[in-house]
Amino acid sequence: MSVNALSVGTDAGLLAPTWADTPVAAEATDEAWLQAMLDVEVALARAQHAVGLTPAAAVETIAAAARADRLDPVALARAARATANPVVALVTAFTEVVAAEDPAAAEYVHRGSTSQDILDSAAMLIARRVLGLIAADLDRVRVALATLAAAHRHTLLAGRTLTQHAVPTTLGLKAAGWLHLVADALARVRALASALPAQLGGAAGTLAAYREYAALDGGKDEGGVELLGPFAQALGLAEPVLPWHTARTPVADLGAVLQLVTGALGKFALDVQTLSRTEIGELSEPAAAGRGTSSAMPQKRNPALATLIVSAARQVPAHALVLAQCMLAEDERPAGAWHAEWQPLREALRLAGGAAHTAVELAEGLVVHPEQMLANIGLTGGAIVSERLTVALAPAFGKARAKKLLTAAAAEAADSGRPLDEVLLGHPELSARFTPAQLAELLDPARYTGAADALVDRALRRYGDRPVTDPTADGGVR
Amino acid sequence: MSVNALSVGTDAGLLAPTWADTPVAAEATDEAWLQAMLDVEVALARAQHAVGLTPAAAVETIAAAARADRLDPVALARAARATANPVVALVTAFTEVVAAEDPAAAEYVHRGSTSQDILDSAAMLIARRVLGLIAADLDRVRVALATLAAAHRHTLLAGRTLTQHAVPTTLGLKAAGWLHLVADALARVRALASALPAQLGGAAGTLAAYREYAALDGGKDEGGVELLGPFAQALGLAEPVLPWHTARTPVADLGAVLQLVTGALGKFALDVQTLSRTEIGELSEPAAAGRGTSSAMPQKRNPALATLIVSAARQVPAHALVLAQCMLAEDERPAGAWHAEWQPLREALRLAGGAAHTAVELAEGLVVHPEQMLANIGLTGGAIVSERLTVALAPAFGKARAKKLLTAAAAEAADSGRPLDEVLLGHPELSARFTPAQLAELLDPARYTGAADALVDRALRRYGDRPVTDPTADGGVR
Amino acid sequence: MSVNALSVGTDAGLLAPTWADTPVAAEATDEAWLQAMLDVEVALARAQHAVGLTPAAAVETIAAAARADRLDPVALARAARATANPVVALVTAFTEVVAAEDPAAAEYVHRGSTSQDILDSAAMLIARRVLGLIAADLDRVRVALATLAAAHRHTLLAGRTLTQHAVPTTLGLKAAGWLHLVADALARVRALASALPAQLGGAAGTLAAYREYAALDGGKDEGGVELLGPFAQALGLAEPVLPWHTARTPVADLGAVLQLVTGALGKFALDVQTLSRTEIGELSEPAAAGRGTSSAMPQKRNPALATLIVSAARQVPAHALVLAQCMLAEDERPAGAWHAEWQPLREALRLAGGAAHTAVELAEGLVVHPEQMLANIGLTGGAIVSERLTVALAPAFGKARAKKLLTAAAAEAADSGRPLDEVLLGHPELSARFTPAQLAELLDPARYTGAADALVDRALRRYGDRPVTDPTADGGVR
Amino acid sequence: MSVNALSVGTDAGLLAPTWADTPVAAEATDEAWLQAMLDVEVALARAQHAVGLTPAAAVETIAAAARADRLDPVALARAARATANPVVALVTAFTEVVAAEDPAAAEYVHRGSTSQDILDSAAMLIARRVLGLIAADLDRVRVALATLAAAHRHTLLAGRTLTQHAVPTTLGLKAAGWLHLVADALARVRALASALPAQLGGAAGTLAAYREYAALDGGKDEGGVELLGPFAQALGLAEPVLPWHTARTPVADLGAVLQLVTGALGKFALDVQTLSRTEIGELSEPAAAGRGTSSAMPQKRNPALATLIVSAARQVPAHALVLAQCMLAEDERPAGAWHAEWQPLREALRLAGGAAHTAVELAEGLVVHPEQMLANIGLTGGAIVSERLTVALAPAFGKARAKKLLTAAAAEAADSGRPLDEVLLGHPELSARFTPAQLAELLDPARYTGAADALVDRALRRYGDRPVTDPTADGGVR
Repeated sequence: MSVNALSVGTDAGLLAPTWADTPVAAEATDEAWLQAMLDVEVALARAQHAVGLTPAAAVETIAAAARADRLDPVALARAARATANPVVALVTAFTEVVAAEDPAAAEYVHRGSTSQDILDSAAMLIARRVLGLIAADLDRVRVALATLAAAHRHTLLAGRTLTQHAVPTTLGLKAAGWLHLVADALARVRALASALPAQLGGAAGTLAAYREYAALDGGKDEGGVELLGPFAQALGLAEPVLPWHTARTPVADLGAVLQLVTGALGKFALDVQTLSRTEIGELSEPAAAGRGTSSAMPQKRNPALATLIVSAARQVPAHALVLAQCMLAEDERPAGAWHAEWQPLREALRLAGGAAHTAVELAEGLVVHPEQMLANIGLTGGAIVSERLTVALAPAFGKARAKKLLTAAAAEAADSGRPLDEVLLGHPELSARFTPAQLAELLDPARYTGAADALVDRALRRYGDRPVTDPTADGGVR
Repeated sequence: MSVNALSVGTDAGLLAPTWADTPVAAEATDEAWLQAMLDVEVALARAQHAVGLTPAAAVETIAAAARADRLDPVALARAARATANPVVALVTAFTEVVAAEDPAAAEYVHRGSTSQDILDSAAMLIARRVLGLIAADLDRVRVALATLAAAHRHTLLAGRTLTQHAVPTTLGLKAAGWLHLVADALARVRALASALPAQLGGAAGTLAAYREYAALDGGKDEGGVELLGPFAQALGLAEPVLPWHTARTPVADLGAVLQLVTGALGKFALDVQTLSRTEIGELSEPAAAGRGTSSAMPQKRNPALATLIVSAARQVPAHALVLAQCMLAEDERPAGAWHAEWQPLREALRLAGGAAHTAVELAEGLVVHPEQMLANIGLTGGAIVSERLTVALAPAFGKARAKKLLTAAAAEAADSGRPLDEVLLGHPELSARFTPAQLAELLDPARYTGAADALVDRALRRYGDRPVTDPTADGGVR
Repeated sequence: MSVNALSVGTDAGLLAPTWADTPVAAEATDEAWLQAMLDVEVALARAQHAVGLTPAAAVETIAAAARADRLDPVALARAARATANPVVALVTAFTEVVAAEDPAAAEYVHRGSTSQDILDSAAMLIARRVLGLIAADLDRVRVALATLAAAHRHTLLAGRTLTQHAVPTTLGLKAAGWLHLVADALARVRALASALPAQLGGAAGTLAAYREYAALDGGKDEGGVELLGPFAQALGLAEPVLPWHTARTPVADLGAVLQLVTGALGKFALDVQTLSRTEIGELSEPAAAGRGTSSAMPQKRNPALATLIVSAARQVPAHALVLAQCMLAEDERPAGAWHAEWQPLREALRLAGGAAHTAVELAEGLVVHPEQMLANIGLTGGAIVSERLTVALAPAFGKARAKKLLTAAAAEAADSGRPLDEVLLGHPELSARFTPAQLAELLDPARYTGAADALVDRALRRYGDRPVTDPTADGGVR
Repeated sequence: MSVNALSVGTDAGLLAPTWADTPVAAEATDEAWLQAMLDVEVALARAQHAVGLTPAAAVETIAAAARADRLDPVALARAARATANPVVALVTAFTEVVAAEDPAAAEYVHRGSTSQDILDSAAMLIARRVLGLIAADLDRVRVALATLAAAHRHTLLAGRTLTQHAVPTTLGLKAAGWLHLVADALARVRALASALPAQLGGAAGTLAAYREYAALDGGKDEGGVELLGPFAQALGLAEPVLPWHTARTPVADLGAVLQLVTGALGKFALDVQTLSRTEIGELSEPAAAGRGTSSAMPQKRNPALATLIVSAARQVPAHALVLAQCMLAEDERPAGAWHAEWQPLREALRLAGGAAHTAVELAEGLVVHPEQMLANIGLTGGAIVSERLTVALAPAFGKARAKKLLTAAAAEAADSGRPLDEVLLGHPELSARFTPAQLAELLDPARYTGAADALVDRALRRYGDRPVTDPTADGGVR
């Protein structure tokens, strides 16, 4: 019963099956962060070359040497304790790697730079890559949900509020609601991915050392704000207006958008879980060998995909909170607030990435049981349309009294187990108001889905791939 | 020592001085929410009239009766326990008020509606009003900070990282950083204010009862999606694509934007607190009678405004987290997740509103002590520009060795208390590299502010009121 | 559609039906806080008298004047903005009230004190009162759940994991689990209530001004640590080892315990919601006029009590988080962290108090539908005991193969809709292993409740009122 | 600029220097969790043997095979996606390992068990190990702080409130405050470590399959509650009253205690950061080669240890929040709430463990600059004792007027830059109240430290190693 003696394990996600073995896993390992930091060092050299400073040969040497596998992540992690960030040791180690190739080139490594420029820009690189994955997966979820909404626009389903049957709805409208959330999240992900800024400020955000080296290299003043554009371009990131060492909007934005992603997918997954309850049985997860099994119970088909998504949705807001709070960053670089961002950002990216990937499989393979939906809608013996009856009786009794009468009738039906129509037709005041045929029509849930169909159209027009009728018709709506 | 026997107190903000007695206080009281809910009932009647249903006379009776002071908020709060929301009792009470005027009009109150349509739309009304206040205040903060940045573009200040002097910067650039944050938050507030959607869906989001009453009233099918536009317009809110009873993006967005507001202002306030520390003394809050006094210490001038702001910034992310988590809303209306939003939303609105209002006074009245900034920058005897010396020595010694030499020299200066120039000139290898005059110039912090000036220009161009040079120059940057 | 012009509303809990109109509401109003602060001022005068300082007459004058209704909470809230806390203005106003009675007595008001001593001690007073209410309510919940567990120890219920039927359990064991949580929370509440410390430190925690006035009053050094005991005693609070102006364990503890209270009750409420779903129907909330009604749907009986509890459980952890984070309190009094505690503490107290009060009604009146529990347990045609069959077949096939066979059989039964026994008896390898009678016995859920009964006994022995068998038997367990 | 193609990196803590390379790192890797899960499987077999079931030989085979290095964590992480937890695949893989040794023994692996019994018990094992490390480190911090408090009981220091000088205090009292927090956290850690319960309940908490196998193995009913004691004992954990699959108090408790640990250490670290600011310079972190260096600025000596601690303190409450919220766990095993606990628990353990380890070095090596403390205390020209002057003048002028006079004098001194004594002696009303010598004494900060010394004694008596005077004297205080 001894503990594994190694202090360094694998980062395989054993306790995070939401993202384990999904594409995002590879993008946020320690090694991926190392590589991203090296990518930033290369981009800096390229940008300095672009403005006429660092020689091309040095840039090429630096670029060729910038491979994470030449560095030891474990040694760098250890060394990071001395300085409270991994960049100081990374720069030393990387400079040695470059110097081994060409000592002159080594002079151009990290030239004028500071730890935060490297780590923040690397974080944005990682984030952009992950947002790209998330966008691609969300887009597949979007298409699957639009398809579902279109296919099931007439599939009746009990609308449920506060856990109780409310009025009828359709699976089409329910899916349109999921689509609405996911499409909205997707739009945010895309917008944010293209807005993630590079970070470049130097020691305290004045770009002073960049300029100083520029003066040294080129005898001119072109290493300051002039670097911002080429540097951002070399990274494929947005050019910042100002260094944002302590203006942490970009990081807080990532938290806000990632929690929107898992919140949107989490709502979908939560509904799948509810509707696949043993007693409800209206949806099933896509079957796959081993999927949803238990270590104990042979009959089990757990909603495993939905569970992975929900577990992510329960965690990401806490990471986003830390990121939002780290906006309270004192001075030109805070002593703790910056450092507290890294792990929550990484984990939020992973969880959202894993949730999006998982949701593709869930949405594309969702199994619908319309017959069970219909059976359930009938469980209350007609009470699910009692709102409609209130309306029908309002002219005769007034709205308030009509509701009271129906409340009493519904209670009598529920308590006695008799169908609502029978109770209503047995009621002296009410029986005169309908013929049995009229009542049967009023009680038909299929005739009380309101504007569900029109709402599905609105959603598909907005979020589906092909305009259903007139794509300009709802220009102003949100 | 007995407790006050009344269970209902005043909601004056005794424990929330950030928003007490500020304009936002009036916008989020129980009474304001009641009024907003009544405003929604009126808008619904107007919209139903607009599509040819509810008669004009009934609308006018309803509108005239819709005054919160005709209802008892305490009784409604008590009644809310039975149904877990205040709308059911509100509708009953309001219907009675209308019926007392005209029983026929009472039939048109809340016609086809559901609690969540009323409460969600009311929340958006409240939010829009508060965002309007916040935007106006943030705009004043923006102008004040832009003015500060322009006025102090040459005021030297020690850049500080991890609590220690780093390299020189300017108060202009520091203010530009605050401006950047605040202007960004302002843009988000404005964008969100105009996007807040009305809520209309009926019992389970199908608009069924609205349509049913429409059929009753007008013999046609115009009370469903046709209502969405006129209803939103009557409220001055955005038209929703779909009902969003369980697609809570609008509420999560409010949390995200409000925490951005307090995060941005909190960074500013935190810096004010730091720079007004007794030992630092570079900034003071605007003086006012009684401001910043203590119950014990007569000499105290506490940074009270900044403290109010920081205390808000520490709370709002927690409210935003609850709102984000409430996206996990099961079914067509969740049993708890919706109900958990109301208080956090109210308090986040109040705190952000109060913080913005407080920040106006802080930003407009901030007192700068440039002489103390200059004195502080000299505290380390020149070490604050040792980065610059590294660059200067790099050609001679290589970057790495130059840094090592300077590290040793700076340590020697710090430990011995001697000025850095004296140590450097006493160092055999180094003394040959500079004349005393050259060294004096290198050590002048005013000559090592990098691109601070250019960065101030960028910020003013983007966020100031008047373009400083060429307004199109930074089109692509963020 | 105009907004209420008053900036001060009633604090009736319109948006917080969990605590509106419950006993806790009266304990945490602005007025109650004012009274508690006055109670602290009185206790200070009494303690100073007890150590031989302040004259008895002054104490009595102060005590008689210490009535919140003599102060204007709105004016104090407004004044609090200048100093970022309400105490400075309170002391001024209260001193004037006392001076109007006896100017000499006014000299003894707040003598040697500081805002934080008053406000922190008042917070602990409020907290102690609220914890007392919570403890009384939790104790009633405890008794009700113990009664439920005892009464339903043989009531069969489907155990559910990941939303799916797992194996049979009993309502008795389920209730015992709720009991376990609630009794544990109750023990924490009681322990914390008796440990809440008074706060006394003076301006920066040295008690200096208390001592200085003591020297003045009595010519001796008895106003420092000597005050701690009498002061705490006068308040009925624990004596602190040290002032805890920036050692915020007591406040963080409140957050931790309050979230345990709502977490425990929330689990109970969540299960009630699930089991009262329309399709499940195993539990109902206690009926009451108007309870659980809807503004739209006459048939609705929403689980309103459980919803109130769940909505609290979703909010309290966020308040607790703010309190935990405020442990990061710099210096001898922080500029924001202290101020950020007040509202979250108040709201967490209210929500936990309201949830506990609500849970009494829920637990005492919970309606059980054993027949529906039995019907549901049969829904899977025997599959709910397939784990048991695996065990039975393990000797013949080995554990792994037995599970595979049962998995296949359960899948076949589920897909075909045939009962599991029929499938099993039709299987060539399996049919030989059981007689139909043996299989019927194996498939009887009542015979597969494991140690449920013994576990109920353990819980009742520990948490029930009367030891069931031997009260010492489980001394070491937790 | 390509991304590392491997999806599995090292878990070295590159972005978490607080715990990287500290003892806790080894205790919470994926491999350590795997080993802990295997340890639980062994303990289960031992317990079943202890009650007369599983044969000794099988137990030994199982125990010998239970080595994490025989399993592939990456493959298990991948497989965990199908079932939403890693145990199902682990059981299969481990059973194969055992079967390769002895197929008969393999029948006794995981006998009667369920995933959650294994994973929860493993989590408690991990937690207990980490709490042990934390306790040992906190104890060293405690001793170091007690030593510091004793050594510096007379070292004068400016007490600071809301960032401004308030009244004098001593470093001894300040250290006693840190000690108070840390000793309290230590007591909680120790109490919780001994209370962590084993988890044993079987598929839905009834222990049914354990009993069923017991009947099979031994022909008797001894595999239910009879297993709880031996199982817990084999793990060195506390025996649970009931299975706690959905009674998550133990997990929420871990969150609450871990955030208390980082909160307590964070307060200490935050004060170190503040007092080591360039302008304040009263404390320095222990020097070490490379410690606190920057990638850019050679003169930098950043408070790196304190920064590591503060960054942890900013993250742990968010993890604790997730754990607290996961108390909302529906049914007999929730579909997401359980799964969301694992990563936050792991990371909270690591961060608290790393912070405690870091704090040892900080506390034991903290460098004090008493001369700078004295210099700072004099910065306000005597205003730091103006509270004392108020007391001295109260008899003559009344408390309120005395404070007003001093406020005016302090403001005049601050605005003019003249020392307070000069201003006071120049004031017609005041100059008559003191001789210059009396005033000099009143203005001596060393004479206005109140009960600081007595409070240090109280803290050392309670939390130091050796009673200072009478160990029984403060029996009742907290």
